[in-house]
Amino acid sequence: MMSILYVAPGLGILALLYTWLRSGWVSRQDAGDERMRTIAGYIADGAIAFLKAEYKVLTIFGLIAGAFLFYLGSTGEKSSPIIVVAFLIGAVFSALAGFIGMKIATKANVRTAQAARTSLSRALNVSFSGGSVMGMGVAGLAVLGLGSLFIVFYQLFVVSKGGSANGIEMETALEVLTGFSLGAESIALFARVGGGIYTKAADVGADLVGKVEAGIPEDDPRNPATIADNVGDNVGDVAGMGADLFGSYVATILATMVLGREVVAAGDQFNGLSPILLPMVIAGVGIVASLIGILTVRVKEGGNVQGALNTGNYVSVLVSAVASFFIIRWMLPPGELIIGRAGAAAFTAMDVFYAVVVGLIVGTLMSIITEYYTAMGKRPVLSIVKQSSTGHATTVIGGLSVGMESTVLPILVLAAGIVLSFRFAGLYGVAIAAAGMMATTAMQLAIDAFGPIADNAGGIAEMSELPKEVRERTDILDAVGNTTAATGKGFAIASAALTSLALFAAFMGTANISVIDISHADVLAGLFVGGMIPFIFSGLAISAVGRAAMAMVQEVRRQFREIPGIMEGTGRPEYEKCVAISTQAAIREMMLPGAIALIVPIIVGFTMGPEVLGGLLAGVTVSGVLMAIFQSNAGGAWDNAKKSIEKGVMIDGVMQYKGSEAHKASVTGDTVGDPFKDTSGPSMNILIKLMSIVSLVIAPHIAAPERGVAQVPSPRLELAAQAGATQAAKAPAAARIMLPAADVRR
Amino acid sequence: MMSILYVAPGLGILALLYTWLRSGWVSRQDAGDERMRTIAGYIADGAIAFLKAEYKVLTIFGLIAGAFLFYLGSTGEKSSPIIVVAFLIGAVFSALAGFIGMKIATKANVRTAQAARTSLSRALNVSFSGGSVMGMGVAGLAVLGLGSLFIVFYQLFVVSKGGSANGIEMETALEVLTGFSLGAESIALFARVGGGIYTKAADVGADLVGKVEAGIPEDDPRNPATIADNVGDNVGDVAGMGADLFGSYVATILATMVLGREVVAAGDQFNGLSPILLPMVIAGVGIVASLIGILTVRVKEGGNVQGALNTGNYVSVLVSAVASFFIIRWMLPPGELIIGRAGAAAFTAMDVFYAVVVGLIVGTLMSIITEYYTAMGKRPVLSIVKQSSTGHATTVIGGLSVGMESTVLPILVLAAGIVLSFRFAGLYGVAIAAAGMMATTAMQLAIDAFGPIADNAGGIAEMSELPKEVRERTDILDAVGNTTAATGKGFAIASAALTSLALFAAFMGTANISVIDISHADVLAGLFVGGMIPFIFSGLAISAVGRAAMAMVQEVRRQFREIPGIMEGTGRPEYEKCVAISTQAAIREMMLPGAIALIVPIIVGFTMGPEVLGGLLAGVTVSGVLMAIFQSNAGGAWDNAKKSIEKGVMIDGVMQYKGSEAHKASVTGDTVGDPFKDTSGPSMNILIKLMSIVSLVIAPHIAAPERGVAQVPSPRLELAAQAGATQAAKAPAAARIMLPAADVRR
Repeated sequence: MMSILYVAPGLGILALLYTWLRSGWVSRQDAGDERMRTIAGYIADGAIAFLKAEYKVLTIFGLIAGAFLFYLGSTGEKSSPIIVVAFLIGAVFSALAGFIGMKIATKANVRTAQAARTSLSRALNVSFSGGSVMGMGVAGLAVLGLGSLFIVFYQLFVVSKGGSANGIEMETALEVLTGFSLGAESIALFARVGGGIYTKAADVGADLVGKVEAGIPEDDPRNPATIADNVGDNVGDVAGMGADLFGSYVATILATMVLGREVVAAGDQFNGLSPILLPMVIAGVGIVASLIGILTVRVKEGGNVQGALNTGNYVSVLVSAVASFFIIRWMLPPGELIIGRAGAAAFTAMDVFYAVVVGLIVGTLMSIITEYYTAMGKRPVLSIVKQSSTGHATTVIGGLSVGMESTVLPILVLAAGIVLSFRFAGLYGVAIAAAGMMATTAMQLAIDAFGPIADNAGGIAEMSELPKEVRERTDILDAVGNTTAATGKGFAIASAALTSLALFAAFMGTANISVIDISHADVLAGLFVGGMIPFIFSGLAISAVGRAAMAMVQEVRRQFREIPGIMEGTGRPEYEKCVAISTQAAIREMMLPGAIALIVPIIVGFTMGPEVLGGLLAGVTVSGVLMAIFQSNAGGAWDNAKKSIEKGVMIDGVMQYKGSEAHKASVTGDTVGDPFKDTSGPSMNILIKLMSIVSLVIAPHIAAPERGVAQVPSPRLELAAQAGATQAAKAPAAARIMLPAADVRR
Repeated sequence: MMSILYVAPGLGILALLYTWLRSGWVSRQDAGDERMRTIAGYIADGAIAFLKAEYKVLTIFGLIAGAFLFYLGSTGEKSSPIIVVAFLIGAVFSALAGFIGMKIATKANVRTAQAARTSLSRALNVSFSGGSVMGMGVAGLAVLGLGSLFIVFYQLFVVSKGGSANGIEMETALEVLTGFSLGAESIALFARVGGGIYTKAADVGADLVGKVEAGIPEDDPRNPATIADNVGDNVGDVAGMGADLFGSYVATILATMVLGREVVAAGDQFNGLSPILLPMVIAGVGIVASLIGILTVRVKEGGNVQGALNTGNYVSVLVSAVASFFIIRWMLPPGELIIGRAGAAAFTAMDVFYAVVVGLIVGTLMSIITEYYTAMGKRPVLSIVKQSSTGHATTVIGGLSVGMESTVLPILVLAAGIVLSFRFAGLYGVAIAAAGMMATTAMQLAIDAFGPIADNAGGIAEMSELPKEVRERTDILDAVGNTTAATGKGFAIASAALTSLALFAAFMGTANISVIDISHADVLAGLFVGGMIPFIFSGLAISAVGRAAMAMVQEVRRQFREIPGIMEGTGRPEYEKCVAISTQAAIREMMLPGAIALIVPIIVGFTMGPEVLGGLLAGVTVSGVLMAIFQSNAGGAWDNAKKSIEKGVMIDGVMQYKGSEAHKASVTGDTVGDPFKDTSGPSMNILIKLMSIVSLVIAPHIAAPERGVAQVPSPRLELAAQAGATQAAKAPAAARIMLPAADVRR
């Protein structure tokens, strides 16, 4: 066995080691006084209660899906029932990643609040450590899981059968490995949707009665929904985001591996495995880069928190880029490579590196653009602020138009990224760009998860009635957290989009189709139906939040009415009832959208064939990315428009402040935006990835007839033949378009 | 020359004769007392002022576009500078159609109000007559314009050069004819967007200050924006809708003609022209069918207005179907037909008829579904009503989710329609389905235009302080008008979608490409960028309304503040200032979205080639149809949720009525929905059609290299060869999918 196989899992173990050590450090921090511990205990209990309820349901789902997979794996020629094992491990690992994140977040929140009694610097240290535990845990589990399973499957399906790195045996090995990604992404979907519904039902419910009707501040302990609201930050923003990026990370690596099978590197020192292993090794090295970035994050009292996080982020991106350069030079000999089938192109090792750079740039630009559209003081948010002076309706209209307009730049960046990375290295280039972008996932997650921890710390400070300066310090962290949440969303969308495209390409290869022609009516119909799915999915998620929030509103109103002394602070609100409402609603309402994502590709694939399914996937991806950007940015912009008014702004010569009519209108905007940005918007990411993965899993079973792949002795010949066939298929109409791409490379 | 060429223009003249006679009849009706005439005069003047301002700008646009077309026509091999003539005639005809509609609507409104003093039956008669003048005018101009130009161009480019019905000469003739459609659709875009911005700026502005702040009823003469609001009904709902359907109607017929060139009917008695002329003849016969339907619309006092309109509609659809059967049997001999290039299939005359039936069914189903999602008393609207009890935010969330969920059924119907009509007769089948659906456009428009006329009549009755029973009668008509507006939107969306697909198919043929492969990175990027355009377009349109409405709000507030005695009814509001604000805003704000629609396909086509442009068009169409359905239905549902509460409803045991908190929330929903359903939503229809037409016009100039079309002597052979090539190109991957379609037909 070659030592390169062990690089990725080894680095995964390193990440988990960090997780274990750092998590111990966080646990040893002071958790504050009795009251703080009690409140933190409520939050932790609520979070665990939700996870338990969710995982119980997901176990049943896992068994049903596992049985279906077993059936598929037993019947398919290029598959194996062992896919069930990969699937279950993927599901367990994803659940574990969510659990680790949640556990550390519910520990770090109260300790951050306590640390904020001393200094901003310490508070940042505790909260960011919490985030880094989550980030490293997710990355470590992903790389360890994928890497070890690959070793096993490579041994089992390829080495033991004397197969090659490019042959049908490897195809089977990778097909079985896809189960891991399917497991991960399925859990991610339910975690994202369930968590998103949970957190926003609680948030909207708490705000509508608490802030608007009763006029008490956010996180006021008299509000019965306040614990549910804080639990929601953990189950939605921490566990949901973690599962989302875990899924993207795994899916990206996997898709690139699948495409790597079709890449033949002349004189490959690793037995032809280099193009397959490259994404995993880049991910592993990205863990080290993230670690270096994480260790640079430091801030002095009164210092610039955002700047410190940015520095850390840029350090890890840069280290990752440089490391990728050397890895690619080492693993891919500087000869010419050929990729066959779904993307006829020839390219060099340097081209692969350029594709990685494209991915890094796309990710960075997407974050910057997202920040522009959702940041205070910039034109988009200011336009909403202005429109809030004429009432609720114009505020809503303003946010919707900002959201719609905000799709332009991200889509242009994404389109340019696709075209460029494809020019560099064909479909493998698109996939490796995604892999490059995802390399620093651990760092991204650390920055991302720190936000809700700080938010929670502020909530605990408020509920425990800690001194004012504590809340001020956590507010600084929270404000930074809001920005990182926005940029994190941009990153997540970009990664989901590129991942889906990589999966799409892998699907085409596995399903043995080289053309998806939208001028064919069936494919076009698939495109329409696919485009519609993000709409119904968003509609269901949003209406679920609306319904659950209404139930929450009624419960909170009831408690205010029936519990004596609740407003005076002498009666204890029944927090657990609100927690239960959110939990039940989340579990119940996540079923239908989840089922749609899983079942539609199966039905379409088996009844209409792979080309129509390809059209469906394209529709889902395009429309899903658009809806994700639209909803996330509209929500973020409304949120910050409200925050701007709360700070006090002049609109047309009139001062607007907290409590004014303009502020009330801005609260409406923010409330509409809540499910947009935290439920349906982020769910889009998982929706598009999951549908692609499901398609990839069923691909061998719906594949078009073989074109003699097994018979042709040399893969190089086979690939060349296919490349020729692709060219012929497109000539002469498409030749004009294909040629420039090819020309560039010669 | 063959007499069949004169059938369509002849029937077009018949329609215009009806327009002339009926319009005279309407003019001869009593226009009421002095006050009514004065108010109607304000409205008519405002409407004409807007049209003048709009047409002035459009003249400049026409000259620029004309110059560009002249350049294109002079350089292209398969084009001619004469395309400019077609373009200008199309633009003038479209403007004329809008003008006729506006003129009759501003005459019929006051006469309907006066007629309503006597009886409901007379009021319906006047208002529906006004609508029918508009419908017949639009249909007549379209068929007359297209039909006569075709005679001229056929003579000029084909007969005089000895060309055949399937040869390159005919391709040139049809390419030049496309100019007519381009002219029509360009004017339609500006009319729809400009009119949509106008009407909603006035409506939102009038409501926000009048209803919400000052607490005076709708159409109160003390409200300075009330005249602008009523003008808006005419320029947006009448002229905009008319231009929209004029454009769809023309584009559908044209696209089917272009595809008809590639259809060869063995033993065609009309010199090979039958497949080309068929859509025009069906449209002509549809005029007769509509006329029959219009004449059946009658209602007694206290009778069912909706029922009467439905009967008329079903009569015209049925007559149209039966007539199509005989026409197809007569024009297409019952031998086997072959269509080549972009859709390899063989089919019979009966198959073509079945495709027409599919189109009629799709149109009807789309209307029914739209009605379900926007009607009072049905689940979707009730869910919004319920959510309005918990405030503005949940009302908005409720409407957004209804809109998103409402995309499912229409898309499934549309997808099924595409697949079925393609199975029957290839891409020609898809186009002819659209043509069948559009045959009864005159009837649809009559029903549609009657709504705003009745709405205006109610406004005039209110402002002229006519007796209460007059307003009650016009309210009955107005309520029916709201339903027909909703169903009309469903019809318009379906027609735009099918039309775009037909144009898309025609574009592929003209651009000489047979495959649009989304697995190619450039095409995929085109798909993404295309999908984004409806978002930016909607965002711009919505924010334009938001801005214009804010200006209107400020003006109305100013007048209330500065004009003495305005609230007591002794001071005269400065209506004309509000009219000017709406006019200027509409003209200014329609530029950018219009420019995007026109310029993007040109840039993409010339820089990236036809296949990428095809991907772009597919993205625009899918995303545009989804956004159209989402926005129209959300807007319609909010509107009727508000109306439900105004009638008084029980929500959770509490009675909600006009003025309650729930009602205020529902007004917010309705106001958000206004630009959705009347500005950005309907603009989507024209956006997708216009971008397809622009592409079709530039198609010969960006076409892929010829495959010897001119050299092959027999078109049948040529087509067969191409069909073979298409099959080969897709084999073996797509063979599985292609075969069933072919099998069905043997």
